[in-house]
Amino acid sequence: MKEKIKLGYIGLGHRGFGVMQKCIAEMEDVEVVALCDKEPLQFEKTLKLLAEKGRPTPYCTGDYLDLVSDPTIDAIMIMSGWGGHMAVARDCVLAGKYTAVEVGCAYSLQECYDLIAAYEKTKAPLMMLENCCYGRKEMMALNLVKQGLLGEIVHCKGGYMHDLRNEDLFCRITEPVPHYRLSEYIHRNCEQYPTHELAPICKVLGINRGNRLMTLSSVASKSRGLADYAKRNLSADSPYANMEYKQGDIVNTLITCANGETILLTLDTTLPRPYYSRDFTVRGTRGMYTEERKVLFLDGMEHPVEFNEEEMFKKYDHPLHAEYVQLGERGGHGGMDWLVCRAFIESVKSGTNTPIDAYDTVTLMSIAALSEMSIQRGGAPVDVPDFTNGKWFHREPVARGKYCLDEVVEDKTVSIF
Amino acid sequence: MKEKIKLGYIGLGHRGFGVMQKCIAEMEDVEVVALCDKEPLQFEKTLKLLAEKGRPTPYCTGDYLDLVSDPTIDAIMIMSGWGGHMAVARDCVLAGKYTAVEVGCAYSLQECYDLIAAYEKTKAPLMMLENCCYGRKEMMALNLVKQGLLGEIVHCKGGYMHDLRNEDLFCRITEPVPHYRLSEYIHRNCEQYPTHELAPICKVLGINRGNRLMTLSSVASKSRGLADYAKRNLSADSPYANMEYKQGDIVNTLITCANGETILLTLDTTLPRPYYSRDFTVRGTRGMYTEERKVLFLDGMEHPVEFNEEEMFKKYDHPLHAEYVQLGERGGHGGMDWLVCRAFIESVKSGTNTPIDAYDTVTLMSIAALSEMSIQRGGAPVDVPDFTNGKWFHREPVARGKYCLDEVVEDKTVSIF
Repeated sequence: MKEKIKLGYIGLGHRGFGVMQKCIAEMEDVEVVALCDKEPLQFEKTLKLLAEKGRPTPYCTGDYLDLVSDPTIDAIMIMSGWGGHMAVARDCVLAGKYTAVEVGCAYSLQECYDLIAAYEKTKAPLMMLENCCYGRKEMMALNLVKQGLLGEIVHCKGGYMHDLRNEDLFCRITEPVPHYRLSEYIHRNCEQYPTHELAPICKVLGINRGNRLMTLSSVASKSRGLADYAKRNLSADSPYANMEYKQGDIVNTLITCANGETILLTLDTTLPRPYYSRDFTVRGTRGMYTEERKVLFLDGMEHPVEFNEEEMFKKYDHPLHAEYVQLGERGGHGGMDWLVCRAFIESVKSGTNTPIDAYDTVTLMSIAALSEMSIQRGGAPVDVPDFTNGKWFHREPVARGKYCLDEVVEDKTVSIF
Repeated sequence: MKEKIKLGYIGLGHRGFGVMQKCIAEMEDVEVVALCDKEPLQFEKTLKLLAEKGRPTPYCTGDYLDLVSDPTIDAIMIMSGWGGHMAVARDCVLAGKYTAVEVGCAYSLQECYDLIAAYEKTKAPLMMLENCCYGRKEMMALNLVKQGLLGEIVHCKGGYMHDLRNEDLFCRITEPVPHYRLSEYIHRNCEQYPTHELAPICKVLGINRGNRLMTLSSVASKSRGLADYAKRNLSADSPYANMEYKQGDIVNTLITCANGETILLTLDTTLPRPYYSRDFTVRGTRGMYTEERKVLFLDGMEHPVEFNEEEMFKKYDHPLHAEYVQLGERGGHGGMDWLVCRAFIESVKSGTNTPIDAYDTVTLMSIAALSEMSIQRGGAPVDVPDFTNGKWFHREPVARGKYCLDEVVEDKTVSIF
């Protein structure tokens, strides 16, 4: 067990800086030894932050290969935009580093195969930092499932339901670098952003551990929301005001699993909607949980029951989240950023595999590319690759300890702070 | 314009008697001249009801062909279970009768082709009595769409979300005749019951009138809910306690339309859930309406907005429903049974086509058979037939007047009472 780990950190944009500020820079057992960003102006803010916290000064570089080849570095976090994730992650894994990668998807299956081949070669643990796996509601649902309270699970759904028209897509178009998402929406039509809902669902269904995703079918509505919004809200001479956007407004994706469960994912980001939702829903033979209506219903309860969310948490909180709340909330997004970072750091310290591991990561990354294919084929089902090559039959929970979401355990050997 | 019409009425079970009692027997311009049911015991209650209301006594028969061949009968309502709908409807249409048929689906596309061929031969108007087209929420949404308040519509969804495990499926198994649905769930795996949500969506999207359904993909989860419930709740020697049920617990169906819109339907009837929902949702470039959260949101409103439903109705009620409310509610299911029956009766009286017409009816009826095919093919998209054979390009609203949901009109020529 390492007392302290040495971390290389790639990407100091909005998300990268935010996680550094609220999580990584607060962790006494992490020494940030190197910062990497293509844009030299980004370093200053982070160096200032670390100095204020009394932390050692890392070196700065524009070339991530400097981190990859630095033998003092234990682990690398890749916090940059989607575009370069895959190749960077592959190089980190090939160099034998513990590698964490922010959420995002591959552009092709080949990228996924390349990444998993790198993992099979070095076995350097790879983890998508899917914070929603550590969301309180998602963890509570998992806790309910593990305790058997929902019976046998037969269906899950979730979505990324968030009006991004101004929030991400058009908010920075007059700046030199628009949000990287905009380019995705101009050029692609697919389930662009499935991991927030799908990763916790994979935990619920034991994907890559006794179960796997088998087929995927995606259907996209026509694309009207962005063009209509742009025409009304951007200045007439903006290149974005009269552009064609390929991304369909609503994309629904149906996934079948080896054990007969189905999953419904919805991307809903370019039409007016008044509230954010991940629509996280778990349906079993003995009960249902749904975030959208804050409903937890166990068979036999009086109809209709809508729980007070705080009471729900009090009764069914996942042990890990209960402990986190008790020790004092920190980090962004209600704790899930903190917990997902801790999960990675604890794996590095203990030298164990990551709770969202290489197979999970490439499975999640493959969804956008698969849905793009299916949409182009009119919704025809496409095969989700078995990146484990059959190992899913007998895989045990990959990490042990409290960050391992695959089992409910009381483990006092690691601290979440 | 006929002052009074002569009606033949087939099927006096739970639904048939209910609609007779609350709607048809209350209508002064309808004379029920014939009752038909296979079970002679069913006649007594209806005859008593009509006598109490001071209405003429109809003749009773066990053979629907007596009604079909009765030249005095203007119109026939088919209120029996799904099993015999299609053949009976075809015979009625072939005999030139105005024909109304309760909701339900075909078992094969051939049944749909046969029924539409009968219609093409005689042009006798045929109407599925899809009451949800006249639901207050659905009509309000249609009103919003027709007024352009939601912008261009790109996606709709709906579901039949109703825990039927005991309510329909197992509630009568010790009686001589179990609910007819049970047999469907034992033998088929498909979107069994799509019309409550799909028919109003078809109105919103102008299906068969400038638009049409193109492809359909269905994916079913494994079937566990009924077996698990039966094992826990039925006596061990019941034939239903250890039976295999083919119907998947959750069936999601994705439909694409000629004009680029998509539709998501969900059948959700065999797992625990605490509330009924049709999840009726309309998404446009300028706004969204969703029944599930009672949300009407128009672009530019302050976030988040959840409307008081009564205020919503006050402001956006469909003119037909506003008039109905003003004149005093009657009939079952909040008025929609009354309104759908009136829509049919008014068409018969005025000699015009029905607002849900033959093409709409067979389109709706085809969904179960199509979804069954798609499920068997692993979710592969199947083609929804164009039953209009191209007439949908230029079809006008088929009925004029206030029951015609295809346009918002002020028409004082017909009364809704």
